[in-house]
Amino acid sequence: MWNPGEDGIIRRSDRVPDVPVGLSRFQQIVLHQGRIERFFLDHIRKHSKDTLRVERGVLPESLHIDEDTLEDHSPDNYPITVQLQHLTEEEATPAQSNGSTVNDGLFRSNLAEDDTDDLIAKSRDKAGSTETVRAKYMVGCDGAHSWTRRQLGFQLEGEPTDFIWGVLDVIPITDFPDIRMRCAVHSSGNGSLMVIPRENKLVRLYIQLKEIKPDASGRADRSKITPDTIITAAQKIIAPYNLSYEYCDWWTAYQIGQRVGTNFDYKNRVFLAGDAFNLGWKLGLVVKGVAQPSILKTYQAERRRIAQDLIDFDHKFSRLFSGRPAKDVMDEEGVNMEEFKQAFIKGNMFASGLSVDYGTSMLVAKPGNAADQGDGTDVSSSQPNKVIGQQELASNTKLGMRFPNYKVLNQADARPWEFQQRLRSDGRFRIIVFAGNIVNAQQSARLQNFCRRLASSSLLAPHLYKDIDILTLHSSKRTDVELLRDFPDVLHPFDAKTGWDYNSVYVDDVAYHEESGEAYSGYGVNRETGCVVVTRPDQYVGYIDACDEEGFAGVEAYFKGILAS
Amino acid sequence: MWNPGEDGIIRRSDRVPDVPVGLSRFQQIVLHQGRIERFFLDHIRKHSKDTLRVERGVLPESLHIDEDTLEDHSPDNYPITVQLQHLTEEEATPAQSNGSTVNDGLFRSNLAEDDTDDLIAKSRDKAGSTETVRAKYMVGCDGAHSWTRRQLGFQLEGEPTDFIWGVLDVIPITDFPDIRMRCAVHSSGNGSLMVIPRENKLVRLYIQLKEIKPDASGRADRSKITPDTIITAAQKIIAPYNLSYEYCDWWTAYQIGQRVGTNFDYKNRVFLAGDAFNLGWKLGLVVKGVAQPSILKTYQAERRRIAQDLIDFDHKFSRLFSGRPAKDVMDEEGVNMEEFKQAFIKGNMFASGLSVDYGTSMLVAKPGNAADQGDGTDVSSSQPNKVIGQQELASNTKLGMRFPNYKVLNQADARPWEFQQRLRSDGRFRIIVFAGNIVNAQQSARLQNFCRRLASSSLLAPHLYKDIDILTLHSSKRTDVELLRDFPDVLHPFDAKTGWDYNSVYVDDVAYHEESGEAYSGYGVNRETGCVVVTRPDQYVGYIDACDEEGFAGVEAYFKGILAS
Repeated sequence: MWNPGEDGIIRRSDRVPDVPVGLSRFQQIVLHQGRIERFFLDHIRKHSKDTLRVERGVLPESLHIDEDTLEDHSPDNYPITVQLQHLTEEEATPAQSNGSTVNDGLFRSNLAEDDTDDLIAKSRDKAGSTETVRAKYMVGCDGAHSWTRRQLGFQLEGEPTDFIWGVLDVIPITDFPDIRMRCAVHSSGNGSLMVIPRENKLVRLYIQLKEIKPDASGRADRSKITPDTIITAAQKIIAPYNLSYEYCDWWTAYQIGQRVGTNFDYKNRVFLAGDAFNLGWKLGLVVKGVAQPSILKTYQAERRRIAQDLIDFDHKFSRLFSGRPAKDVMDEEGVNMEEFKQAFIKGNMFASGLSVDYGTSMLVAKPGNAADQGDGTDVSSSQPNKVIGQQELASNTKLGMRFPNYKVLNQADARPWEFQQRLRSDGRFRIIVFAGNIVNAQQSARLQNFCRRLASSSLLAPHLYKDIDILTLHSSKRTDVELLRDFPDVLHPFDAKTGWDYNSVYVDDVAYHEESGEAYSGYGVNRETGCVVVTRPDQYVGYIDACDEEGFAGVEAYFKGILAS
Repeated sequence: MWNPGEDGIIRRSDRVPDVPVGLSRFQQIVLHQGRIERFFLDHIRKHSKDTLRVERGVLPESLHIDEDTLEDHSPDNYPITVQLQHLTEEEATPAQSNGSTVNDGLFRSNLAEDDTDDLIAKSRDKAGSTETVRAKYMVGCDGAHSWTRRQLGFQLEGEPTDFIWGVLDVIPITDFPDIRMRCAVHSSGNGSLMVIPRENKLVRLYIQLKEIKPDASGRADRSKITPDTIITAAQKIIAPYNLSYEYCDWWTAYQIGQRVGTNFDYKNRVFLAGDAFNLGWKLGLVVKGVAQPSILKTYQAERRRIAQDLIDFDHKFSRLFSGRPAKDVMDEEGVNMEEFKQAFIKGNMFASGLSVDYGTSMLVAKPGNAADQGDGTDVSSSQPNKVIGQQELASNTKLGMRFPNYKVLNQADARPWEFQQRLRSDGRFRIIVFAGNIVNAQQSARLQNFCRRLASSSLLAPHLYKDIDILTLHSSKRTDVELLRDFPDVLHPFDAKTGWDYNSVYVDDVAYHEESGEAYSGYGVNRETGCVVVTRPDQYVGYIDACDEEGFAGVEAYFKGILAS
């Protein structure tokens, strides 16, 4: 962080790590949005065997929902009808693609007008083709210009600010020492900027444009915003250091605002995106007939609560960022730099995604009132008796939060794994059997009982491995036990063509080459008696119970509130 | 390791890690040969911009070397002429590709005859086309059937053994507990086998075929070797455990032998491969005119010494592996299992490649006699005074061995790096400046002097960054120094379009999220005064001297014995 000293000149005032220490094995990295998109496109292609393609240049015209059949979940009921307009080649090619991006940085900025209706109208005049789609479910975007939100009549709450910021992706030529560090610079009177290093010597600069103000209508004069005016603003902020560039990769500008939608779903049939990870697996399981349609209402409950928390934070943070630093303790209008630092650290925590703690619902078996812990929607289980997990059996593995990661060893080959790597995002729930110390005959018997019930459960057995995966982590010495001799078959199933499964049973033991052997204490599980944890397909912890016959009854009850059959 | 107990039944007798503990951050992995080849082909394509292609179905017919011009290294002298025969489509398609590989596992096994001459003759009859290639240098293969070796009249020393082993790549169906561990099984009377786990549940099994013996001519009856006879042999060895398979990916069989060539180069113009890593960069630098042609003679000196060591080890190891285990201490004909275990551990060390220690030469400035430390070739420097590095300045960074790896931080962005990742295999020498504690004014002055001489050296300056890269590692606190203020420009060069280089200066300091800060003690370098290490393009340590004006004179003398101009 760089703030003005007493002489008004910026100096490095503080340093904090980008990622809170000890939070995750992953560090922060800035990836170009195009790379993320490419990754998704490649995987859609691969996993659909090239049958699914993303269409572009297609705009929606009308949405009709058959209210009478919304509750009918039979496979051939498609209550949603959307009319699509395929844009002509000319309309589908934005002006930005015709020239250099450097010349049209404000394309699709929130400083520009919404051009959806205009595009549809023009395209219709030019006889672009139309298409009618009938669907069970529909997912729209949640941006300020969302057409789907407009059709549903949902509102955005919140207001834009007067702050306008420019963005430059450039290879900087500068003597500013922290140009390869993510950092914030508050100048005494010329505004603030943020430095975000990227790949190939590129740096993304967020630059406050103090000289650009919205007019009475709330709109800024876009003609004044160019890469030249933005870099000039940056040069004033970062003085006495020099800053220029020869190569600009991209630029834009936008008006800061924090708005959140009042609703994210319409009767569990039409959804506004925002957390694809949360919505995707739920829709998938319902469409496949694996899960009850009622789990869909947890999307809005879980999504909106987090969105509101984030917006509240960003509201405060953007004002701390764009405000003038306090000259001294008497300067009450200025921003307190210690407060800014604390917000910066909290922002890092938010960005990591690991602070999310979902409220109780049919998917998260924890105590309390579902409406209070979410966005007000009732997402409690339809089961007559509320199922509640035994949090104390895995004290550091919190119901409603991500299943934490520790290093474990594969029992069959002693290879170390980050345990989380075994929880693939493949749409499956997971029963994670903390088998405890199975060298102890009594514990071994408890495990056998749990497994016997699991293998013969008429509710769960038909779903095993296909919709519900099983992972085992025991705490005996690896060399004291054998996979085939000491673990029931359901934990490492046999296949007539490929033999036993060697990738499902793990041990919390010391590796030859890496630190490990602390997983049980990390998860907060008793090494002797273990427990059973159920994770949702998005790796959030849904249920915890004992690794025995009674515990199995609890696991079954949890799934009864979720599975369709 | 599995050996017979007193009752003659195999039991797990011992366990050792695959890779010696603490040796490297990399662990062992088995990669399919086709994947390695694909990797090379992709990179040849990429880095040659698709101008270089590997041709197949081309065989050499004749080799002519113009002895009179071998010493003439002018750019237009091509003393080697090779006549090539392009095989017809039919000849170029081995019988193996026509059917299943499972039906022809002995294709190109050393149990099969050399078919080179036969292929050439048949192809000529069928009017395949010929081609004449004139070359400066030529690289042939070093296998038992090497055509190039035959033309040069070099010999293979050593003899085949009577041991014949089969190989099966299968998905095993078995109750043998260690099927996912690399392990060795010695049965009491049915021979030995080795288990090497692969990807996708595949396991490679090496299986001793005790019932197949070479006849008087030294040849085995190949018709008796099939996947069935091999798995039957395995079943006898591994009893009382069961072993079968449904899926076989590939199989072969071969006769064990250890043979090493008498020569690996002919007058520094024709080379026999075997260590492409060692030969490639030397040839590249000579062809580009960067290095003196005399460095080429270090290839045979370095290669043959290592090959002989490895063959000597394998000679002993294969006999320990194929021999019958001793029944008791009185059983002198049997193999001592403790001796086998020690050889197994030594084999793991060999396989890692990190035990290589090259002798003194113009490329490795260490004391002693070049002929004694290599294969007898005189590879000492042509310099009037022998250059010898100051080993004591980097006591754990051995002249002649690979530059070790420790974790360091980038000075500009605090990102941790495995330092070895900065020593890319791009054909460049590297001057690694251990700058020491540059907060100390005296040490800073020593660094300035070294850098001033380096930047103005008429020998080295023209090669900087293009043929000789520079990396810096200092030991001050990262936050006490600034890249631009405290380090001479030559250590982080400026480019008018892309600004300063931020990827050349590192620090041995503590990272936020990872263990680090032990590099200087790891390399054995004094934290106050530092030193300078020169690495060859293959990351072997060539020279060590002080980080001052006098040390620079040594660095210059070392390069004088290598660089062409």
